[in-house]
Amino acid sequence: MRVIFNEEMKAVADDLDRMAQGVRKAIQGAGEALLKSDVEAAQSVIDGDIELDALEASVIDQCVKLLAKQNPVATDLRVVVSTMRLATTLERMGDLAKHVAETSRRAYPGSPLPDEAKEIFASMQDFLDETADRLVSMLADREAKTAELVIADDDKLDALHAKTFELALDESVDLSRQQIIDIVLLGRFLERLGDHAVSAARRVVFIVSGFDPSKAPSRDEEGAID
Amino acid sequence: MRVIFNEEMKAVADDLDRMAQGVRKAIQGAGEALLKSDVEAAQSVIDGDIELDALEASVIDQCVKLLAKQNPVATDLRVVVSTMRLATTLERMGDLAKHVAETSRRAYPGSPLPDEAKEIFASMQDFLDETADRLVSMLADREAKTAELVIADDDKLDALHAKTFELALDESVDLSRQQIIDIVLLGRFLERLGDHAVSAARRVVFIVSGFDPSKAPSRDEEGAID
Repeated sequence: MRVIFNEEMKAVADDLDRMAQGVRKAIQGAGEALLKSDVEAAQSVIDGDIELDALEASVIDQCVKLLAKQNPVATDLRVVVSTMRLATTLERMGDLAKHVAETSRRAYPGSPLPDEAKEIFASMQDFLDETADRLVSMLADREAKTAELVIADDDKLDALHAKTFELALDESVDLSRQQIIDIVLLGRFLERLGDHAVSAARRVVFIVSGFDPSKAPSRDEEGAID
Repeated sequence: MRVIFNEEMKAVADDLDRMAQGVRKAIQGAGEALLKSDVEAAQSVIDGDIELDALEASVIDQCVKLLAKQNPVATDLRVVVSTMRLATTLERMGDLAKHVAETSRRAYPGSPLPDEAKEIFASMQDFLDETADRLVSMLADREAKTAELVIADDDKLDALHAKTFELALDESVDLSRQQIIDIVLLGRFLERLGDHAVSAARRVVFIVSGFDPSKAPSRDEEGAID
């Protein structure tokens, strides 16, 4: 039973890898769209979201079948439940990247961001690109330690998010109302991407630790999710 | 086994009822805070969020135990999985109500909204109060038909959300930058509350139909979730 469980979880893990890679591609594409007014990148993110939706449905479907057939218990069961929740978190990250791409496409051939905002958003983007790389490598290498970096670094994104508000409120910077709106919403989308990345990182720790019980985190860490 | 499954699901259903009631209270409180500058209501929503977090954790924990002990299959299994996902959706609704309460508290004794915005937001609030009532009664009465109303009505909230942008962009209305920011973010929080309510309604249909297979929706309806 254990062998079959591990084999079937491997198939699910492959789909999770694909989802994480898809999310990384969506985040990178959203950045190209936002910071370089790359409308093809924007369209690609928007069109690609359907694949992430399908992968989420596939992961959940496989997990449900695995629960029915194998009746996993204890850690195995919690790994399956966390896997379903991770798929949902990754799917939501795809939605947020899509929102960024849509906002960028709407402003094309211009940018939704004034020049004064670009440095802050470029820093947020760098942060999220690195976070997405970490999520992909955590899943691929079954390496839980990287998660600590993702979780610890979240304050940096929050500080950048605070700067977007400072800019939007700074009367010495000439901004149209549309620009104020876009700064606030784009900042929110990127900050939420970071929140979900932290949530995903916690789940990945739990899931990869489940494959190797010597790395198991305490129940509290899993409880902190969402 | 079936009897035990139903008994244990009844205990979970009671917690879901409590969650839905807690979300309704949070939405109502957020409305009092936002539209009447009621800072006590705001504080109560903010303080109460921890209970929703605890209820979510409790529902998921009970579901995991139920999966381990009873190994439900077919519809029963999907009901348990949907129940976990519903708990997460309701918890997220609590977070959004808390964001509205926090924004309102920050502006106290004033309002984050200019007078010109109050009618639109009051309409959004009425909509969400009614939606929250419907979610509570759907769960309490195991009545799936109400979900159709929640799902069908979502366009109304989207239309009101669009009006918040029109107002924020209307140069003939004198708005401070903070007011523009608050209109946009509060509009986003309320719109997301509506999105989650639709998602919750779909899950409730699936869950209550699972208790009575004659009401079972097609697989497609469940697939549309998120």
